[in-house]
Amino acid sequence: MTYNISRKSTGDFDATLARVKEALKSEGFGVLTEIDVAGTLKAKIGKDFRPYRILGACNPNYAFEALSEEAHIGVMLPCNVIVQRYDNGEVEVSSIDPATAMQSVGNAKLEGVASKVRDALKRVIDSI
Amino acid sequence: MTYNISRKSTGDFDATLARVKEALKSEGFGVLTEIDVAGTLKAKIGKDFRPYRILGACNPNYAFEALSEEAHIGVMLPCNVIVQRYDNGEVEVSSIDPATAMQSVGNAKLEGVASKVRDALKRVIDSI
Repeated sequence: MTYNISRKSTGDFDATLARVKEALKSEGFGVLTEIDVAGTLKAKIGKDFRPYRILGACNPNYAFEALSEEAHIGVMLPCNVIVQRYDNGEVEVSSIDPATAMQSVGNAKLEGVASKVRDALKRVIDSI
Repeated sequence: MTYNISRKSTGDFDATLARVKEALKSEGFGVLTEIDVAGTLKAKIGKDFRPYRILGACNPNYAFEALSEEAHIGVMLPCNVIVQRYDNGEVEVSSIDPATAMQSVGNAKLEGVASKVRDALKRVIDSI
């Protein structure tokens, strides 16, 4: 069991980021938030970090279903998808695995929606 | 073991949201993202939902430490803090419990930073 679903990309960082956004859109996920990790760390504490972007992806129908079943599930929403470039030049895309993440919640009613979101995110990652 | 740290507030929704932001700031967390869940669900799928806000809180020093130990930990960052008003009028604040969340990662090097972030978020929730 892993907490993320990952795949290396053959494209460069910016092209991969654009492809990820398109793929999320085609699976019904809006990108509600975007964090430039390297830029934020540089601005706040002066540290250098490799290119690393965190996208907060939300499929509103699935989010509504999850929130209706579990009042506090917002502490795990939206689903994050990250794009990073390692020092060797490799670009990788990863999403949270919502099925793993929601196991700690212990609400069996969430299993169905977690599984659907997992499948959709897996298709996004596989398409990169 | 729970996945969130929660506390009821005596203040109204907006006042509580403002207090949470102040408390996060005093513990060194910047609020990098803010999602109006009710507004988003209404706009995207026409569903009504109770007042519910998701704040993405990030302490850059702790984030740098976690990212340096675990390349994919960005799928769990920033730490979410939510404020919601139930139909009976009660306002509640909850944060993710990073110690629980990071157990699924299985990287012992993260335990120290997860514990420090948990303590800081606990102080934020307790102060509300």
